[in-house]
Amino acid sequence: MVLNQAVPTREAIMAACERFLGGHGMMRPHDELRALAAATAPDESADVYGKGNLIEAFEREIAAILGTEAALFLPTGTMAQQIALRIWAERKHHDTVAYHPMCHVETKEEKGYQRLHGLHARLVGDARRLMTREDLDTVAEPVAALLIELPQRDLGGMLPSWEALQAQTAWARERGAAVHMDGARLWESAPFYGRSYAEIAGLFDSVYVSFYKGIGAMAGSALAGSADFIAEARVWQVRHGGRIIHLFPYVLSARTNLRQRLDRFSHYHARAVTIAKVLQAIPGIVVKPEPPQTNMMHVSLHGDPERLEAAALAIAREENVALFRALRPTDLPNWTMFELSIGDAADALTDDEIRAYFTRVMETE
Amino acid sequence: MVLNQAVPTREAIMAACERFLGGHGMMRPHDELRALAAATAPDESADVYGKGNLIEAFEREIAAILGTEAALFLPTGTMAQQIALRIWAERKHHDTVAYHPMCHVETKEEKGYQRLHGLHARLVGDARRLMTREDLDTVAEPVAALLIELPQRDLGGMLPSWEALQAQTAWARERGAAVHMDGARLWESAPFYGRSYAEIAGLFDSVYVSFYKGIGAMAGSALAGSADFIAEARVWQVRHGGRIIHLFPYVLSARTNLRQRLDRFSHYHARAVTIAKVLQAIPGIVVKPEPPQTNMMHVSLHGDPERLEAAALAIAREENVALFRALRPTDLPNWTMFELSIGDAADALTDDEIRAYFTRVMETE
Repeated sequence: MVLNQAVPTREAIMAACERFLGGHGMMRPHDELRALAAATAPDESADVYGKGNLIEAFEREIAAILGTEAALFLPTGTMAQQIALRIWAERKHHDTVAYHPMCHVETKEEKGYQRLHGLHARLVGDARRLMTREDLDTVAEPVAALLIELPQRDLGGMLPSWEALQAQTAWARERGAAVHMDGARLWESAPFYGRSYAEIAGLFDSVYVSFYKGIGAMAGSALAGSADFIAEARVWQVRHGGRIIHLFPYVLSARTNLRQRLDRFSHYHARAVTIAKVLQAIPGIVVKPEPPQTNMMHVSLHGDPERLEAAALAIAREENVALFRALRPTDLPNWTMFELSIGDAADALTDDEIRAYFTRVMETE
Repeated sequence: MVLNQAVPTREAIMAACERFLGGHGMMRPHDELRALAAATAPDESADVYGKGNLIEAFEREIAAILGTEAALFLPTGTMAQQIALRIWAERKHHDTVAYHPMCHVETKEEKGYQRLHGLHARLVGDARRLMTREDLDTVAEPVAALLIELPQRDLGGMLPSWEALQAQTAWARERGAAVHMDGARLWESAPFYGRSYAEIAGLFDSVYVSFYKGIGAMAGSALAGSADFIAEARVWQVRHGGRIIHLFPYVLSARTNLRQRLDRFSHYHARAVTIAKVLQAIPGIVVKPEPPQTNMMHVSLHGDPERLEAAALAIAREENVALFRALRPTDLPNWTMFELSIGDAADALTDDEIRAYFTRVMETE
């Protein structure tokens, strides 16, 4: 007789998974802190309110990669981007900024740009496709800055061609506006452009990059630009409440993971292309973009989402393999989707296994 | 022949110190991360964007200590307090807030309350003494909130009497204004009032507490209040860029150190009273307040600051004992001062040693 055998929750099932299709695997505090301690020299000093060799050297390392004069480590991208837009607004004497409707600043930050900074957004282009120079040419009001997200996360990591990117940044220059890059996934873009990060960043006046998405660190971001721009950003960092007395856990995690993974994005991209082909060949699965332009894609599934989620959960419970969690609605009835970013974790799954698991998901009644 | 024997910098000398008059000793990333890993169960899950048992349970722990319905863990006090003031401004339909001229919000945050939130400050009372009810009675304009700092850090940790505190909070209530506590050092105030934290917090509508000052954690703060107030604060946390994907290093450090040190503040206060007596008895040294009301005091020294700093540095170099770093100007010519907060570190120094070191500082030519 089995009593008190509780049905495990979705969270408990996912937490027990040992292999993952997306990302770099589960972040576990105990293991992460122990690994960070091991990666830190015993005599390395703590940063104090943004000062100290640990954080300053890492900021120089980021500036060198991006080819900018300076960089500033910040706890979040939300903070980094609002600061960048506010600085450009004050310098350009306009309070309007232009960007694609699906940008993080617009959709995921509770309109901080507006409620904290008094800025207005001129949304440019269609939410379901990349912004174009033609879209920008319809803007008939002065803007302080144009923000371009590379790649566009909510389009499955799509990227404009190098020529399209040049044409868009030229639009801003022609009007005296600044160009800011939302480079939350810039690291992921290098295989597509086949250019150095510095060359891509060179089209922009300011750049935000993240350390916890593709890089897989605990948290953290950087804002990069000219020395005077970064000096001004440090003032706004204080105002935002982002000058945390000790940022070293995030800096150490960012430093360790950046050095370890920066050269792996071509591999992640190649693996994403293969996995996209495997998935696309399964009836009822559509991948966007196909082929993927980065390590990211949107995977849309045909069928009842509850049934599909239950099938994936059964695989997680029985095989300790996490394929996806919740499915999100799409524009089409009976189609739902999940976002997939390929990292280290996918190396533990063969193409045949991925094919078999998703075939099972799609065929489960 | 000794070549390349560099003169150690002030930073290097301080970093090599083994005993400290103030605080809890040096924060070293390697040791801190290792200790945190050890204090974390291997199966404890990471928080994700403010969710998860690790952070939610700690927020409940803080709310229980303060006797509030809810609490929110935030990376900094700057963020916590601006959020509190903004919420009260919107709820009370006024954009003016009242507080003592030396409050952190006014002096250390690059006027974020103004530049991010459009708030105005009505400074109340004299910068060199505590605010009083009589000072408040001179305010002739509507205010959304009264902020009271307990204890007043820039007055050496001075505290109003319980009756004075009641009279001040009553002033706000009579006018329909909210009362917010800057409790950056609230933990340090309990010995003075001889009341529970919940009873002190009960005079206020919202309370900010810090985890890295007296508690000695890596970083972090909490905002506490009613459930609806905290729900609204979570929206502003996103806007401020404070909803870091993983806050677990700070939460774990706050949890560990709070549980370890919360009962020690009476000891720190008693030690501060003794040390103040020792210092006050040395010619050329004046302590404020005397006796200290918390574990804090301002120690003013008579004489040339460069000579005094050099004498302290010599003791740091020769004895590996850190007494103070830089001295700050005072209102009186030939008097400079340093802020002293007593924590665990002072237990490693006897009164006789402290007397001898400071006598040497004062007598060095």
